[in-house]
Amino acid sequence: MHTDEPAATYVVDGQEFSRDMRYIATRITADGSTSYPVEAGRYRLVAARACPWANRALIVRRLLGLEDALSLGLCGPTHDARSWTFDLDPGGVDPVLGIERLQDAYFARFPEYDRGITVPAIVDTTTGQVVTNDFPTITLDFSREWTAHHRDGAPDLLPAAHADELEEVMDLVFRDVNNGVYRSGFAGTQQAYEKAYDRLFARLDWLEDRLAQQRYLVGDTITEADVRLFTTLVRFAPVYHGHFKCNRSKLTEMPALWAYTRDLFQTPGFGDTVDFGQIKDHYYIVHTDINPTRIVPTGPELASWLSPHHREQLGGRPFGDGTPPPPPRATERVPAIG
Amino acid sequence: MHTDEPAATYVVDGQEFSRDMRYIATRITADGSTSYPVEAGRYRLVAARACPWANRALIVRRLLGLEDALSLGLCGPTHDARSWTFDLDPGGVDPVLGIERLQDAYFARFPEYDRGITVPAIVDTTTGQVVTNDFPTITLDFSREWTAHHRDGAPDLLPAAHADELEEVMDLVFRDVNNGVYRSGFAGTQQAYEKAYDRLFARLDWLEDRLAQQRYLVGDTITEADVRLFTTLVRFAPVYHGHFKCNRSKLTEMPALWAYTRDLFQTPGFGDTVDFGQIKDHYYIVHTDINPTRIVPTGPELASWLSPHHREQLGGRPFGDGTPPPPPRATERVPAIG
Repeated sequence: MHTDEPAATYVVDGQEFSRDMRYIATRITADGSTSYPVEAGRYRLVAARACPWANRALIVRRLLGLEDALSLGLCGPTHDARSWTFDLDPGGVDPVLGIERLQDAYFARFPEYDRGITVPAIVDTTTGQVVTNDFPTITLDFSREWTAHHRDGAPDLLPAAHADELEEVMDLVFRDVNNGVYRSGFAGTQQAYEKAYDRLFARLDWLEDRLAQQRYLVGDTITEADVRLFTTLVRFAPVYHGHFKCNRSKLTEMPALWAYTRDLFQTPGFGDTVDFGQIKDHYYIVHTDINPTRIVPTGPELASWLSPHHREQLGGRPFGDGTPPPPPRATERVPAIG
Repeated sequence: MHTDEPAATYVVDGQEFSRDMRYIATRITADGSTSYPVEAGRYRLVAARACPWANRALIVRRLLGLEDALSLGLCGPTHDARSWTFDLDPGGVDPVLGIERLQDAYFARFPEYDRGITVPAIVDTTTGQVVTNDFPTITLDFSREWTAHHRDGAPDLLPAAHADELEEVMDLVFRDVNNGVYRSGFAGTQQAYEKAYDRLFARLDWLEDRLAQQRYLVGDTITEADVRLFTTLVRFAPVYHGHFKCNRSKLTEMPALWAYTRDLFQTPGFGDTVDFGQIKDHYYIVHTDINPTRIVPTGPELASWLSPHHREQLGGRPFGDGTPPPPPRATERVPAIG
């Protein structure tokens, strides 16, 4: 409960929450059109199980089977105002990058870097420099640029036949849901909070209707849109309901969304990336301006995440013409629940 | 969201929450054994709809029909570190006592008073001095000492045949539930929080089992024990679940307790004393050390409080040989929900 580090500030009194979207947009490409060609073994994905934006990259890496081509460094759930840290590793040092703080990889490339030190980030292990932290592009490029290293049976997460619908749905979900929970939780005025809350639940009602009719968000297979919605929904009961005041109803009180989230949670590549303990620690300990005591709630109970969801009755082909990924490697397993 | 008043402190870092139980224990008695004999029209009950301890007094006054004998002053839901205030009244002044701040009635009797300015309090209108703020005794004395002014059909809230069981159950409920939610929410260490949380939910499980078998807590009629449990349960979903981190399960996920609470809520004298808006404003705005932004959550939805509870199938005689109270007087109505 104590720290001598400066606390980060998330809420600005009197203002709406505004996400700083200025990310490092450098891309790793298959055709060598940038200085960073796709190359097995060269890059390291730095993530944190706590973070929903990083969770996307963890899931897509699993679904596509990029584990052999792209190694993984994991930051601990808590951090101070300066940086995520490798406090889970022996000696607090990432064994490949040899650094304690993720900011070192940012400063290695941009000595005057003054924006957020965020996860997910991809670091070039040959130089120790960060390549990109542009989370929306990272997962799209996993699908489009890293194809040479996809596993056999990797699903198509961006089916061309549904390209426009995917983009539209992902945009709505980002604005109202993925980022909407933050706009609710970090609102600096009552009015900004209520606006975010209303938009969030209106969108969740829209999603509830849609997912009562079909197993997945777009088409009849798992897509990038499902990955992006899942990472927010899986944090809803443990964090957003209480900590971010998204409390019109619990996830368990929206039957289609709750079954949909359980369905994905029980699908290889999704639930096996989720660490509820780290998720709760992150939000409740890091955001001292909305939880100054840093007390981490014990609840909610998690056993029901493993209960039957019956979503297969809606049809759908989870991996399309592909197959589920094999279990995660021993070094990348999360604690079991229930 | 702004105030220049000093904020009160509820959480002491590194410590368990400890309620200051040193109340003004002066009693108003029927036999004149104190300087304060029971007398219609002489005393004023000062309460706040937000406060669970005051809510007890509001309910018992309604059930016993003491409205004509004992007038009511209502403080607003928010207050600063110094005192509850009469900010709901025209000009911010209680029309009978002629004061803006409840502390004035305390200081009128004890100029050096240095303990909490709490509701419920009973004030002697002939002197403007507070008589008592000893909340556990206030409601017991309404039943035992104010009998001459009970309405026709007033129920017996302290049936002698169940005296020992009542005392035992009320003590358990006070320690683990009524005060337990505060020990959870105001814990200054993770360990103190977890201890309170575990005791709270163990007791709620015990109550859930008990109330699955019987309509009311003790015997087959409404008693003081039901009043005391109700005032905590009715605040569970809107406040304690999120704000106090009592989040193992929502009240709606404990079927017998949820039906029991709805049953009482729909019983004259209970729900008609409950103002959910004031309850939420109080906790979220006053406790700045656990909610520094003072944002008040919009949820949860309340319409389900009016849904059928089917508890009459368990038998029981709500008012025993008595009758329900008539509707509240026009000046004492709370906003409708749903």
